Amino acid sequence: MNKLDVSIIGHGPAGLSAAIYTSRAGLKTQVIGCDPKVAGDYFIDNYFGCPEGISGKALIKKGAAQAKKFGTKVVNEKVLSIEYGNDKTFTIKTEKSKSNVKAVILATGISRSKPKIPDLDSLEGKGVSYCVSCDGFFYKGKKTVVLGEGNFAVNQAMELLQYTKDVALCTDGKDPEYSDEFKDFISTTQMPIYIKKVESLIGDKSLTGIKFTTGEEIKADGLFIAIGDASLLDFSRGLGVIINNNYIEVNNQQRTNVEGVYAAGDCTGGFMQISAAVGEGANAGKSVIDYIKKL
Amino acid sequence: MNKLDVSIIGHGPAGLSAAIYTSRAGLKTQVIGCDPKVAGDYFIDNYFGCPEGISGKALIKKGAAQAKKFGTKVVNEKVLSIEYGNDKTFTIKTEKSKSNVKAVILATGISRSKPKIPDLDSLEGKGVSYCVSCDGFFYKGKKTVVLGEGNFAVNQAMELLQYTKDVALCTDGKDPEYSDEFKDFISTTQMPIYIKKVESLIGDKSLTGIKFTTGEEIKADGLFIAIGDASLLDFSRGLGVIINNNYIEVNNQQRTNVEGVYAAGDCTGGFMQISAAVGEGANAGKSVIDYIKKL
Repeated sequence: MNKLDVSIIGHGPAGLSAAIYTSRAGLKTQVIGCDPKVAGDYFIDNYFGCPEGISGKALIKKGAAQAKKFGTKVVNEKVLSIEYGNDKTFTIKTEKSKSNVKAVILATGISRSKPKIPDLDSLEGKGVSYCVSCDGFFYKGKKTVVLGEGNFAVNQAMELLQYTKDVALCTDGKDPEYSDEFKDFISTTQMPIYIKKVESLIGDKSLTGIKFTTGEEIKADGLFIAIGDASLLDFSRGLGVIINNNYIEVNNQQRTNVEGVYAAGDCTGGFMQISAAVGEGANAGKSVIDYIKKL
Repeated sequence: MNKLDVSIIGHGPAGLSAAIYTSRAGLKTQVIGCDPKVAGDYFIDNYFGCPEGISGKALIKKGAAQAKKFGTKVVNEKVLSIEYGNDKTFTIKTEKSKSNVKAVILATGISRSKPKIPDLDSLEGKGVSYCVSCDGFFYKGKKTVVLGEGNFAVNQAMELLQYTKDVALCTDGKDPEYSDEFKDFISTTQMPIYIKKVESLIGDKSLTGIKFTTGEEIKADGLFIAIGDASLLDFSRGLGVIINNNYIEVNNQQRTNVEGVYAAGDCTGGFMQISAAVGEGANAGKSVIDYIKKL
């Protein structure tokens, strides 16, 4: 069993930014997880210091090199469980290894479920998006649809309205699960909701419309996927970490309610942007340095 | 008088990151201030995405180009006053211009007073530093002194202990103004305090020691300047913004107690790092977008 100071779960921007801080301060640090998904697929032009823009993949590669430079071990394995022992340490089990650490930073991001719609992948970045804050800008005055049955989808639709007035919701055939506040918003704005299942996407080089299983077709330049999924939070629940609306609850030092467990980035909710994730990761790293110093 | 949506005071990382978000969302944005000092002088190797490290100046130049690309106007003028009118707008007066805006983001950083010590500037980065989180790493196991009479200095000394056990305080001849918690820390750790005035620094290419006006000399590889100064917060006070321990109080959306006034970066306290400032700036930008949308 590897003995280390801190294990960071997830190697997106939040996890790697935390690792840069902890390893630079001399803590034995590992970053564990599968390859980051969402950020990797995107072109980023709003992260401070990248005026020409950069792909998510390239930025993460740079961040990983930086963390490794300071001694971070980057492990590409899926975490199966995190157990809290009587000796106040944590045992991280992956498919291939086990390690024992004094502190854990959860930075798993959120898994955004992909609906099974033909051509969804091939149209990604060409009309299909997973992030309004990232891409809403490109849909100024255009026809857009947000796909999702929960509050997350309505929230994305709210954000989209600052770019275009033409926003509709689609539950992909599911019953809407909106809370009262969001229902009020929908009725006030008279936003159209399609409680219909998507059969296919229309468009070759880029999205032009959506076809429902009823045979009905609507025009659309942008489809924003916003289906919530908490599966990555399962092991946080196992640790007794308080979760609110599928997000891990942290204080302003990124500390959860469980001693030695910190969290940063999209899995803590808030503003889901690389800028914010990097700041939160740095903060979590700093908190772990302080925590381990006091042990 | 220029009519704009938002004025961001200070063009360090926090201010420019906010500007990237607001201008990208179509808000008429200006960033006003003098050239950023502290960050600009430093070599940065812990900002996610810069594995080779980058000078503060180069990073800020990139961020400014990025904000300008989205339409931000960068104005190099010193802000004299910010006034809140009856029409719920703000008038920003500089030495050369006046502008009227719907929202303000304060991102002035903090001015760290420089004591009048010969050779302080020429030894900056060569033993003289203004930031333990930034530079403590380079003083592992070395002899260090933190200059300052208040809690800020003691706090920096605490942070330094994770890199080296050889840390002393020097009040530069002033009476210490430490609160009880910090006094306890000093007596527990038996950290030496020199209540003496610094006459000069010793060392040609890099710092090797400090000479006091008493004639006494001590060895030192690192001198960290940590003298608090709130002068940049004066106009915040004028707006009625709540200030705590010289830092602007904000909620987790970077909103101050005054409607339309937001703040981000070092002037809000917390973890004073570019990573954190960039995240807070993005968050403040997002909050202003939401605020102006609702007006």
